[in-house]
Amino acid sequence: MYKKGTVSRARLLISCPEKPGIISTVTNFLLEHNANIVHFDQHTTDPQAGIFFMRIEFDLEDFDSSFEKLEQDLPALGRDYALDWQLNSNEKRKRMAIFVSKMNHCILELIWRWKSKEIPVEIPMVISNHVDLKEEVESYGIPFYHIPMSKETKEHAEQKALELLKGEIDFIVLARYMQILSPNFISKYPNQIINIHHSFLPAFVGANPYVRAFNRGVKLIGATAHYVTNDLDEGPIIEQDVQRINHRYTEEDLKIAGRHVEKKVLAEAVSWHVHDKVLVHGNKTIVFA
Amino acid sequence: MYKKGTVSRARLLISCPEKPGIISTVTNFLLEHNANIVHFDQHTTDPQAGIFFMRIEFDLEDFDSSFEKLEQDLPALGRDYALDWQLNSNEKRKRMAIFVSKMNHCILELIWRWKSKEIPVEIPMVISNHVDLKEEVESYGIPFYHIPMSKETKEHAEQKALELLKGEIDFIVLARYMQILSPNFISKYPNQIINIHHSFLPAFVGANPYVRAFNRGVKLIGATAHYVTNDLDEGPIIEQDVQRINHRYTEEDLKIAGRHVEKKVLAEAVSWHVHDKVLVHGNKTIVFA
Amino acid sequence: MYKKGTVSRARLLISCPEKPGIISTVTNFLLEHNANIVHFDQHTTDPQAGIFFMRIEFDLEDFDSSFEKLEQDLPALGRDYALDWQLNSNEKRKRMAIFVSKMNHCILELIWRWKSKEIPVEIPMVISNHVDLKEEVESYGIPFYHIPMSKETKEHAEQKALELLKGEIDFIVLARYMQILSPNFISKYPNQIINIHHSFLPAFVGANPYVRAFNRGVKLIGATAHYVTNDLDEGPIIEQDVQRINHRYTEEDLKIAGRHVEKKVLAEAVSWHVHDKVLVHGNKTIVFA
Amino acid sequence: MYKKGTVSRARLLISCPEKPGIISTVTNFLLEHNANIVHFDQHTTDPQAGIFFMRIEFDLEDFDSSFEKLEQDLPALGRDYALDWQLNSNEKRKRMAIFVSKMNHCILELIWRWKSKEIPVEIPMVISNHVDLKEEVESYGIPFYHIPMSKETKEHAEQKALELLKGEIDFIVLARYMQILSPNFISKYPNQIINIHHSFLPAFVGANPYVRAFNRGVKLIGATAHYVTNDLDEGPIIEQDVQRINHRYTEEDLKIAGRHVEKKVLAEAVSWHVHDKVLVHGNKTIVFA
Repeated sequence: MYKKGTVSRARLLISCPEKPGIISTVTNFLLEHNANIVHFDQHTTDPQAGIFFMRIEFDLEDFDSSFEKLEQDLPALGRDYALDWQLNSNEKRKRMAIFVSKMNHCILELIWRWKSKEIPVEIPMVISNHVDLKEEVESYGIPFYHIPMSKETKEHAEQKALELLKGEIDFIVLARYMQILSPNFISKYPNQIINIHHSFLPAFVGANPYVRAFNRGVKLIGATAHYVTNDLDEGPIIEQDVQRINHRYTEEDLKIAGRHVEKKVLAEAVSWHVHDKVLVHGNKTIVFA
Repeated sequence: MYKKGTVSRARLLISCPEKPGIISTVTNFLLEHNANIVHFDQHTTDPQAGIFFMRIEFDLEDFDSSFEKLEQDLPALGRDYALDWQLNSNEKRKRMAIFVSKMNHCILELIWRWKSKEIPVEIPMVISNHVDLKEEVESYGIPFYHIPMSKETKEHAEQKALELLKGEIDFIVLARYMQILSPNFISKYPNQIINIHHSFLPAFVGANPYVRAFNRGVKLIGATAHYVTNDLDEGPIIEQDVQRINHRYTEEDLKIAGRHVEKKVLAEAVSWHVHDKVLVHGNKTIVFA
Repeated sequence: MYKKGTVSRARLLISCPEKPGIISTVTNFLLEHNANIVHFDQHTTDPQAGIFFMRIEFDLEDFDSSFEKLEQDLPALGRDYALDWQLNSNEKRKRMAIFVSKMNHCILELIWRWKSKEIPVEIPMVISNHVDLKEEVESYGIPFYHIPMSKETKEHAEQKALELLKGEIDFIVLARYMQILSPNFISKYPNQIINIHHSFLPAFVGANPYVRAFNRGVKLIGATAHYVTNDLDEGPIIEQDVQRINHRYTEEDLKIAGRHVEKKVLAEAVSWHVHDKVLVHGNKTIVFA
Repeated sequence: MYKKGTVSRARLLISCPEKPGIISTVTNFLLEHNANIVHFDQHTTDPQAGIFFMRIEFDLEDFDSSFEKLEQDLPALGRDYALDWQLNSNEKRKRMAIFVSKMNHCILELIWRWKSKEIPVEIPMVISNHVDLKEEVESYGIPFYHIPMSKETKEHAEQKALELLKGEIDFIVLARYMQILSPNFISKYPNQIINIHHSFLPAFVGANPYVRAFNRGVKLIGATAHYVTNDLDEGPIIEQDVQRINHRYTEEDLKIAGRHVEKKVLAEAVSWHVHDKVLVHGNKTIVFA
């Protein structure tokens, strides 16, 4: 197998209007750069006139020089073929900020998967509008910032958060953060804010989904991880799952059962995002899971 | 075990306001009537002041005389304790009418489970607003009635259907019947009409759920079997299930994948209804599955 | 609703050879003792000549005196009707010992559900044959005992564990404890030791199930929680679940995916055990979940 | 979109020892042959020294001449690069023989998916060791051959079947066919015979899996579709799924519940086989579903 330290894995994401020969073009380019393709995923919204999406995971020997060469030569390829592209490697971990309120089930699942190396990120900070989780978060060596938030202070509080985040993080996870972010805030991180909604969207958009699920008498409850846009609970869905319930479940039981779906769905969405497996197309996602 | 012909199974459903000793009262009554309890299910919406639901499945030796005695004595018990009750036995099969339009996947699943004795019913008739399935239905020896329906003829057509059904059937299954029944029709069969909606309600209430699921980019599609009320797609949910999909599914693929969830969910809801396992409470169901 | 402090919930488990009127007898008894039945579950292995199982959850006003009266009068009822019975209440929490080796995913899930009050137990101690998890366990205020174990020291080590446990705990959870307990040890806690096996039993009994699942090319991996008996991986199964995988999963990926099934399956089995929802019948369980 | 009649979809399957540039080579080749790639799937067992698998689905304008050209030029490409390859198109449907015994649930599901165009095959014949399903199969216009089989007549009966099949079919589905095929028979259709086993393999290999599942007290039952090899129930697994059960299920109930898993799992495996989505590697499959 590979000698440790000399080979590294990288990922190239490409999207462009459908055109003949695009796969050949890109794989030829990688071949010339000594990239050894490990996984190749592709999708087209319409083979005649749609949008083409591609994710290539590849190994590079002599990583430092090879990757540098790729970074140098990709812009020209992109220009020539009108490609949107993104290049990442395992050598550089994404930096994830977590926003929480009072509930700890989602953030603890993320932290556990981070510590067990299942989600390879850095966590430069946790931001919360409450102090409840401060001690627990700090016990993992993660900086915790308390930014109180009310209707009146929202603009100011978001400004403070943006300053903390600036240049320090790559994406944000709302791990049961019970505040609605402003369009201004969201515009700073397009398709880089992941939220967990505690229902099977589009059912029960908005507040108190478990109470409404209880009142409607559904037989399954669910959770949805999605990118945040200005339309509440309408952003591109990354992952969803459900849990069977029955007539014996009280509202409280729904919340308890739901926690386990929420933490699983959010953690998987975050893992896919971190591994560059999620591409956004309009209000939908392509997930090369 | 039992000698064939001398023992039969029966079911007693009871609901009443919560009161002390209700289980003792009813089980004592059954004991006196020589009923041997096989399954006992119970639910209460609130142990202090809620509604109490009970389903008892029991064996009766010397069925004819024992059952007759039960039928005689239950009304008095019901009066004394203010019980809503319902008594059924395997000796008398429920009679099911099926309403269809053009698609055959749901009705064929019901027919297969009927022929394989998984759903022990009689099927006195199928009613359709199209002729497409006439030959197929009749090949199973089931009478097929074609009642065309348009906006203008709806009242007349429903009247015709009601005349056909009157006294001949116990409940109705809408097996992808693409017409909305009038309040007048529905009032004749309260909680006795089962519909299959091709989405995970309350997501995508109304028309074209698969198209809307495609456009929203959900990661799971579902189906919902529910009793029909005057509020479209708002009746008590009996069963729901989902099927995982991904970005490769076209609208057409969603419809195809959805058919298998629809037929399964509908068949299970019908089976539970036939076995008296579904009790309705307001807009919700208690399912003793 | 209830006034705090004056009402408590209790549970009565009963098993006996099938006999007429057993439900009436027991519910009459509870009625006389002012117990208000909240949940009633029942099962019979054969309505004519089988074993009858019953679980009744009920509320008691004036808990202290009512419960004491129940405890006094139950033995006579049990004698008269040849019942096996067990009486528990929410007032007295079960005491759970956890055995671990090096992996923390299962124990952390148990600890989280304990801290969030989802699993209402006391955890008097964690015992491990390694020191790896000492600091983490103690950070939750739980005593941690390191008892090294090798083939040679096994008898002595188990003796030491038994002394620590004696009188201090009610049941034991093996949360990925990588040692096989001796028949002598197991005999001290019959149907009171819960193990998580990392496969969908009876597939892949024994060591290295993920490696063997990988080699066999299965499309689902699973986990099984069961009571421990002297026959390795053959004890009564409490809960099982599976996770879909595909050809891209390496052996390492199977282990990672499996962890999430393991922790969920074990936590649910433990929760049911704690709530007295699991009855054992021979090598099988009845789970009133 | 495409003009009807002028464009058709084709599929190229490739496997070979891992080598640099293989994707470029093949996609360049397809580009030169005016193939428009619609779906591209790839897998490698080891990026350095493993086996490489590829499935490309592509559209061809002027199908007749384009496809002919591909068929002419592929052998040379295969030789030059030491590729195993297979080329198919939607223009030519695979021919499927179905073997059954007495149970009809699996074959009816296949027939329904065939009639609804979900599984695009031809069904030249059904062969059975019983006459029970003759009338039902023939009602769909499918020739039915009854070949009785006993220990003594097995060799002769298989010979008769082989003669019927020869040149008429491409693959065989054992839709609950309760006979074990001989190595001689199997050798004629390597990786072209699909069986449905009524358990979650490798649990309950061999006879009476539901009885054994009942006795073991499992909480999920399953079904497994696999290619038939000389080792009973040991062939490459194509698909598996499970169904939750509980202590109330009798052996008979397990069989009934199992039927629905069996028919679904088998139909999906057959559909994938028909669409060339299954590649075999040793005793495992790669499924590009």
